[in-house]
Amino acid sequence: MIKKYLEKNRRLIDKELGKYLPERISRPRIIHEAMRYSVLNGGKRIRPILVLESSRVCGGRIKDVLPVACAIELVHSYSLIHDDLPSMDDAATRRGKPSCHMKYGEALAILTGDSLLSLAFNLISREKNKAKIGRVVFEISKAIGSFGMIGGQVMDLNVKGAKKADPHTMQYINSRKTASLMAAAAKTGAIIAGASEKEIKALQKYGEHLGLAFQRVDDILDRNGYAEIFGAGGAHDESKRLISKAEDALEIFGRQADNLRHISDFVLNRKH
Amino acid sequence: MIKKYLEKNRRLIDKELGKYLPERISRPRIIHEAMRYSVLNGGKRIRPILVLESSRVCGGRIKDVLPVACAIELVHSYSLIHDDLPSMDDAATRRGKPSCHMKYGEALAILTGDSLLSLAFNLISREKNKAKIGRVVFEISKAIGSFGMIGGQVMDLNVKGAKKADPHTMQYINSRKTASLMAAAAKTGAIIAGASEKEIKALQKYGEHLGLAFQRVDDILDRNGYAEIFGAGGAHDESKRLISKAEDALEIFGRQADNLRHISDFVLNRKH
Repeated sequence: MIKKYLEKNRRLIDKELGKYLPERISRPRIIHEAMRYSVLNGGKRIRPILVLESSRVCGGRIKDVLPVACAIELVHSYSLIHDDLPSMDDAATRRGKPSCHMKYGEALAILTGDSLLSLAFNLISREKNKAKIGRVVFEISKAIGSFGMIGGQVMDLNVKGAKKADPHTMQYINSRKTASLMAAAAKTGAIIAGASEKEIKALQKYGEHLGLAFQRVDDILDRNGYAEIFGAGGAHDESKRLISKAEDALEIFGRQADNLRHISDFVLNRKH
Repeated sequence: MIKKYLEKNRRLIDKELGKYLPERISRPRIIHEAMRYSVLNGGKRIRPILVLESSRVCGGRIKDVLPVACAIELVHSYSLIHDDLPSMDDAATRRGKPSCHMKYGEALAILTGDSLLSLAFNLISREKNKAKIGRVVFEISKAIGSFGMIGGQVMDLNVKGAKKADPHTMQYINSRKTASLMAAAAKTGAIIAGASEKEIKALQKYGEHLGLAFQRVDDILDRNGYAEIFGAGGAHDESKRLISKAEDALEIFGRQADNLRHISDFVLNRKH
């Protein structure tokens, strides 16, 4: 059931992303081709789905929240393109296809990431409820800045040379690099729906713990990070603990939040 | 007189930028050091001054517009850091000092640019007049995206290989790469001040032609681009024509716009 739900929403997000991204024939063609290539690549769309579902749980309408949901996915795509660059993780492939810089060259890959970040804020600015835009821009820009996602990437680069990072540093990296955008996704969905501060806080906590668990599962699947330090068993126990903390935060929503519970179970049990 | 005016405002902007940029000791230190190094480097601050002055001409208060003025300068700094990268213009120095990637390495330079762009939108979101934020985010994100500043940089990279670009392509590059952010600066100053659509349009036109002239003067000083095609004389005539078009747009403001006229004269006659 959760698979059907995720698949339906993945398609919805892909359709919207396809509309928001500039057409392939718009000038300069090469950057618009690279933007579409990098975004429309079969991603799971977990982050935008978090935006939609958090909004729905708080009584918001899907239609109202689609631009911000797509913006969050564009931010995620931008971060992957820049992380893959030769001077960073030097990744030749992304989801089984050449990474952006392998296909379009390094300069264009940097600019493609830059354009996606700019487009993300452009989508947020189209949000209908004008009074909410300021807060959404604030939360997202903070989550992805030098104290958030980029801070995590900086620390990650720092420890790449070292053989094993200490657990404290790994915690810092995971909470910044992955959890902070997921927390922002869940939080902004709630904000746009006009949720109470208590609900906003609960969904932020859910998103954050979901993000931390997501990163642990990634580490188990890739055999690095936490899994390297504690072994796959220890990392799995830790993921379970984090998912249960994420689900604790959902209590105030009762059965309304069942889809979010299914999402967190899916994150815990995913095999790729 | 214009020099005193520019110097006074440059100092004001530098002081504000120093406050908005994260402290050097905040973790991860290296990125915050790189952000401050790249922004607080003695720039002329023409773009943020355009925001302040456009706002003042339309009856706005300087204090209200400072976050957006600083945001525009952060966007400009981000674009310079990325333009200087080895895969782009490969510039070893910037204002007589090592460029960001020469000092901090390529990976960190990319992330420093990324952080400055995120921080720029964060500053905009702190704008007091919440109802205006959506439009300001819309205008700036559009001006710097793949149809604006980044589009210009993509075309610029395309023609770098070719010996001489045609005038039509040079026009495209200049209008996107330089004029579009200057137009956005003048326009957003007016928007925040609560100007009429007619005033907003006039200041946008002023900023755009000022930006085009600015790029021509740059070309004359660096002996490339337009100056290469038409010779320094032709490029100077063209700059004069553009500055007079910029000043035409100011007519509706009368003597109130004298500072903006001084700024455009300064841009035309600058020697570095």
